Amino acid sequence: MFRHIIIFGATGSIGTSTLNVIRRNRHHFSVVGIAANTNVEKLAQIAHEFSVPNVGIFDKHAFTGKDSLFKRGTHFFVGEDGLCELAQLSEATAVSMAMAGIAGLKPTMAAIEGKKTLLLASKEILVATGKFVMESARTNDVQILPVDSEHNAIFQCLLGNGNDFIDRLILTASGGPFRNFSRQEMENISVEQALRHPVWNMGKKITVDSATMANKALEIVEAKWLFDVPSDHIDVVIHPESIVHSMVKFCDGSIIAQMCPPNMEYPIANCLFFPERERLAKPSINFAEQGRLNFFAPDTTKFPHLAIIRRCLEADSNACAVFQAANEVAVDEFLNHRIKFTQISEIVAKTLDIYLGEPMTSLKSCEESVIKARSTAKGIAKEFN
Amino acid sequence: MFRHIIIFGATGSIGTSTLNVIRRNRHHFSVVGIAANTNVEKLAQIAHEFSVPNVGIFDKHAFTGKDSLFKRGTHFFVGEDGLCELAQLSEATAVSMAMAGIAGLKPTMAAIEGKKTLLLASKEILVATGKFVMESARTNDVQILPVDSEHNAIFQCLLGNGNDFIDRLILTASGGPFRNFSRQEMENISVEQALRHPVWNMGKKITVDSATMANKALEIVEAKWLFDVPSDHIDVVIHPESIVHSMVKFCDGSIIAQMCPPNMEYPIANCLFFPERERLAKPSINFAEQGRLNFFAPDTTKFPHLAIIRRCLEADSNACAVFQAANEVAVDEFLNHRIKFTQISEIVAKTLDIYLGEPMTSLKSCEESVIKARSTAKGIAKEFN
Repeated sequence: MFRHIIIFGATGSIGTSTLNVIRRNRHHFSVVGIAANTNVEKLAQIAHEFSVPNVGIFDKHAFTGKDSLFKRGTHFFVGEDGLCELAQLSEATAVSMAMAGIAGLKPTMAAIEGKKTLLLASKEILVATGKFVMESARTNDVQILPVDSEHNAIFQCLLGNGNDFIDRLILTASGGPFRNFSRQEMENISVEQALRHPVWNMGKKITVDSATMANKALEIVEAKWLFDVPSDHIDVVIHPESIVHSMVKFCDGSIIAQMCPPNMEYPIANCLFFPERERLAKPSINFAEQGRLNFFAPDTTKFPHLAIIRRCLEADSNACAVFQAANEVAVDEFLNHRIKFTQISEIVAKTLDIYLGEPMTSLKSCEESVIKARSTAKGIAKEFN
Repeated sequence: MFRHIIIFGATGSIGTSTLNVIRRNRHHFSVVGIAANTNVEKLAQIAHEFSVPNVGIFDKHAFTGKDSLFKRGTHFFVGEDGLCELAQLSEATAVSMAMAGIAGLKPTMAAIEGKKTLLLASKEILVATGKFVMESARTNDVQILPVDSEHNAIFQCLLGNGNDFIDRLILTASGGPFRNFSRQEMENISVEQALRHPVWNMGKKITVDSATMANKALEIVEAKWLFDVPSDHIDVVIHPESIVHSMVKFCDGSIIAQMCPPNMEYPIANCLFFPERERLAKPSINFAEQGRLNFFAPDTTKFPHLAIIRRCLEADSNACAVFQAANEVAVDEFLNHRIKFTQISEIVAKTLDIYLGEPMTSLKSCEESVIKARSTAKGIAKEFN
């Protein structure tokens, strides 16, 4: 197996893990392109280490005067249009999309239209615009490999099984650091506390989303689009050890679960090597040592995002895009110490009171809903300041 | 999907469960033949309920004067030769083999040669003669679907995955009723105690085998043959809830597990419907209610069968057939109150001291080893009486 890959979001957490997997499997991969939002220095470092000939950067200004950091002959792709061009590079067979937020939407659509196998880590893209992304993937006969550990788990559980036989998807959630907090204690959660995740080591935004369980709410939407399962057939169960990454219950009562240590390199490697598997001399779970796997139901009064997202899914509108945009704004406000932890979900709920029914007519309509939602959420946040 | 099936061992525990699944799915199955060892009355009952035209019985005498129990026009197949003929019935597409012990060996081979899909529940057949059964299945391009819950679990975990990528198989074991007994307490286990299994409802022989963990030892051998995995890559872990029925660890560190309630109808239905799945309105596991799954390492000093079988597997001889034959004799002695619970494994070990190196040259050599082992085991048991 040999794969030519472009990595969008190469400087972020997922990008770094992706490069770790590739570093130990050089004979299987060639990194033909990398891209990031702003971090030119790190891009240059990666370009040198992996001899990457094509480099993209979203923020035009970040790049000014820094091309000398790269080897002569490097091709540069700048701005959104540049990234779209990079995504269609003829020498690439696969694109890993791990840019934060929905910045990667257009390059993702370009990669799909360019018939590249898509390793999709940016859940925001599916949450906001899943309908259109999946439609395009079907039309272009492009396979989407889910990088998110839960969705990668489901993907693995479904191997060799017809989608017809799915009864329910069961997403597991670590429950984050506050699963045992009282509602009262949650009022006073500091930014520092929220950024200390008990199991997973991730970026700031997603760590807060994990603490509020907004992350799990978004994953329900992501699963709905990826696996074409009605959202009322997607359950969430708390599993603090984060060893069972998700499960599929089939119509015959059989449940298939995927497990591995809570480390993103496992699902990333799964996508990179699919349909093969990495030959890894690393340990996995020792069940006798592990001893116990725990499960319990999530408390949606303590984690309102989980209840709010059900409203959005029922609305069958742009509400999920609104949810995500409002949440992004609210988390940003929280990280900047301008609102309380519990106000994150309040901002999302209030924004949705206005935009729950936004019709999902096109990719453009999603983007417009996002813009309106962000602006409204900012206004609501101001009232809390 | 419509399947024409013959059920060997129709009157036993697995046969009864198989018929339960078929009863609720009449439009998918036609039972074209049934067979049993001796229980003519029950066979007649089943023949009536399922309008079965072909009936086999192993014990010629059991049948004498009882053909009036059956509808006129029923075809009878008597003795081992009769059962072999039944197994090749042209109108059948699948054969379910669930006769106790290795009585079903010749009909199994006949079914394979007759190109019938084989639903295999009789683990003894694989333990004693797995090499030859699997060789014949490959030659005849016949699929063997494992009915045993652990092997069916592994079968499901492997769907869509190449065998090349298997690292280890992890067989789970309930640990039986005595997993928390001290070695001392085990000396005095009564037949009654041994027949009270905490989770599974099964026949007597297999319930005792579950209590001694001989059953799990046999399953290691069964897994080795079914999945072509070296036995030192097959682990056993105690899992008292019997919800995770077994797991596969792949070379990339991913572990896939299959779960369902501890009820044989689930794996049986899986085999009956494969590659489809039964559409069952039955509940499965509710993880939030279940709360906890426990795992720990088996204690091979308390359950010596688990250590003894490793010796047999390393010997690469007829030792597994000897193990099984000696164990069968010993369990019978125990059930007849002639030896102690802990003497079951002693008889097996002592028989193996003599026959560990019996060469595995042919199906016939297996059968001969079994006969010698049974006779020797009986002799050893006498010394304990």
